[in-house]
Amino acid sequence: MSNKSGIIAPGGTIGILGGGQLGRMLASAAAELGLHVHIYSPEKDAPAAEVSGHVTCADYEDEAALRRFADSVDVVTYEFENVPAETARILAERGLVRPGPLALATAQDRIVEKNFMKAQGILTAPFADVSDEASLRAAIENIGCPSVLKTRRFGYDGKGQAKILSADGALSAYEEIGRAPAILEGFVSFEREISVVVARGADGEIAPYDPVENIHRNHILHQTLVPAKLPDAVADEARAIASRIVRELDYVGVMGVEMFLLAEGAGAQRLLVNEIAPRVHNSGHWTMDACIISQFEQHIRAICGWPLGRPARHSDAVMTNLIGDDVDQWKVLASERDTSIHLYGKGEARPGRKMGHVTRLYALGTRLA
Amino acid sequence: MSNKSGIIAPGGTIGILGGGQLGRMLASAAAELGLHVHIYSPEKDAPAAEVSGHVTCADYEDEAALRRFADSVDVVTYEFENVPAETARILAERGLVRPGPLALATAQDRIVEKNFMKAQGILTAPFADVSDEASLRAAIENIGCPSVLKTRRFGYDGKGQAKILSADGALSAYEEIGRAPAILEGFVSFEREISVVVARGADGEIAPYDPVENIHRNHILHQTLVPAKLPDAVADEARAIASRIVRELDYVGVMGVEMFLLAEGAGAQRLLVNEIAPRVHNSGHWTMDACIISQFEQHIRAICGWPLGRPARHSDAVMTNLIGDDVDQWKVLASERDTSIHLYGKGEARPGRKMGHVTRLYALGTRLA
Repeated sequence: MSNKSGIIAPGGTIGILGGGQLGRMLASAAAELGLHVHIYSPEKDAPAAEVSGHVTCADYEDEAALRRFADSVDVVTYEFENVPAETARILAERGLVRPGPLALATAQDRIVEKNFMKAQGILTAPFADVSDEASLRAAIENIGCPSVLKTRRFGYDGKGQAKILSADGALSAYEEIGRAPAILEGFVSFEREISVVVARGADGEIAPYDPVENIHRNHILHQTLVPAKLPDAVADEARAIASRIVRELDYVGVMGVEMFLLAEGAGAQRLLVNEIAPRVHNSGHWTMDACIISQFEQHIRAICGWPLGRPARHSDAVMTNLIGDDVDQWKVLASERDTSIHLYGKGEARPGRKMGHVTRLYALGTRLA
Repeated sequence: MSNKSGIIAPGGTIGILGGGQLGRMLASAAAELGLHVHIYSPEKDAPAAEVSGHVTCADYEDEAALRRFADSVDVVTYEFENVPAETARILAERGLVRPGPLALATAQDRIVEKNFMKAQGILTAPFADVSDEASLRAAIENIGCPSVLKTRRFGYDGKGQAKILSADGALSAYEEIGRAPAILEGFVSFEREISVVVARGADGEIAPYDPVENIHRNHILHQTLVPAKLPDAVADEARAIASRIVRELDYVGVMGVEMFLLAEGAGAQRLLVNEIAPRVHNSGHWTMDACIISQFEQHIRAICGWPLGRPARHSDAVMTNLIGDDVDQWKVLASERDTSIHLYGKGEARPGRKMGHVTRLYALGTRLA
């Protein structure tokens, strides 16, 4: 890995940390642009490996394997934000890692993330640092109940979280998350959850897709509605917030920015940032079918120093995740009109496992009409 | 290969004969549906191999390799029509080959193909069988000049063809094509070349995409304009002709049907069939970007016994092939608005080699407005 210009031409090789469905869809998008792909994953039979020319199966702590991997590719990217800091450091030593360390450090720690937002004048839920029982008590006093205690690191899909309904329950919640360094977040009474998937190119160009509405079930994304029903000014604000975040983090790649929409009358600013994901995002899967340039291609374009594509939609859409045995419905889904099926090639349909997704397309401008 | 129902569910394996760009795009489409892919190709570093889980590198005459291949997959398909008859026979002995032998036999021999059209009441250029000098003379007398002498088999992209401007040149044209079994075709004064990419499912369902206009350069497809500018009745006739062909051949899969549009006033029927390709077709590449279900996914759906997708367009489009060093323009193309780039991962940009294509999208109904 010795790319000086930061531009990776067709024929170059993208290294991807992680071999799940996001890596798989990134790999397919890279191949479509004439790029080779090398997947690095500790998992045998990783979904991404099947559609990639090169695979390293090794742990993220395997320094020798990481160095060989880094030396064999032109740029490294990742499909998950919890890349160990040491892994990222080893890779960055050998060459180009995109997105860079600032975004990883910010997204990996909920306290750092919230403080970053605060510094940017971006609203978040009220929060307090919890590092021991004393700071837990102080946080409860400060934030109040109900609230939610979350590990600062390594949480996803509702994991590493415990609700606190009253001060009495604080300690058991703290036990529940294993007394890990934590953040206490106040409950926010929001109207809906929305997100903006935004790209920033190596030259600083920024391209946000339209804000979308997300519906969760059991803490896992169930559906994305495209576009979100929002007043124009709020949609503009959502795009502006996402754009500010990637600019201030000097970010290169695609990022998912999750937001809460507060009820009308809550104040001038109706958007709160919940969290960011420094990677392609489940709430951007609809772009594969409703945009000429998908979030996966956009990410590859960004990390390769290519011009970004225009993030316009040609259709409205509803994306639905296929979780666990939802995937058994493939034949019914295949017979549905204007429905695009994406299956991730995973063997076993365990409960809660993301097996695929479907996108239903609607003519542009008709979904909310 | 022991599939009795003829339905291949996600998790099944598609075998593809041929490892070029068509095989590659088929493989990616199959992966997207949760299917595994096994490429069979004599070529080392075949473009399709890179995006497929399994690869056999062996000759089409290698019976043992063919049998192992057939036994390891649930259905066999192909990316080129010149599959040797013996290869097809060996594979069919072990299980399911789609499209079936009738389509191959028809498309592989220009005389059989033309006679099939004639039997269906479908117009073709005037033609005559040429098997020796005597039949060549008779053909010239019958068809007249200018005309074109083509090998009955194994022609593509203008190869195996020689023009005959006057009877004097007949013999040298015959020499030029190596005195192979041939067909003499009369020149047709056509207005434009169009094609219909049509799919037929295992249950007999037929789904033609809209007719498109094709522009050739040096006998190689240069551009496909979507939709073709045609009176509605002619577009309907084009779809009907393509549908009749796949129905009468009891075809399963996607087929490209090339037609000539005669000038107005040429008679009631303005469409002539030039040739058929029993496979996904270059003139259908635009469907990757302008339809929810691409021709590649449609072919996979058909050969797996899935319901076909609706072949509707959400956008107008112009597809342009990147031939030889056209591909060096990738960076300019990447910066073009609403342009989707597809590169095939081929190493060397030899003259005449298809290296990729781009599709430019336009809002539905605007390209001809």
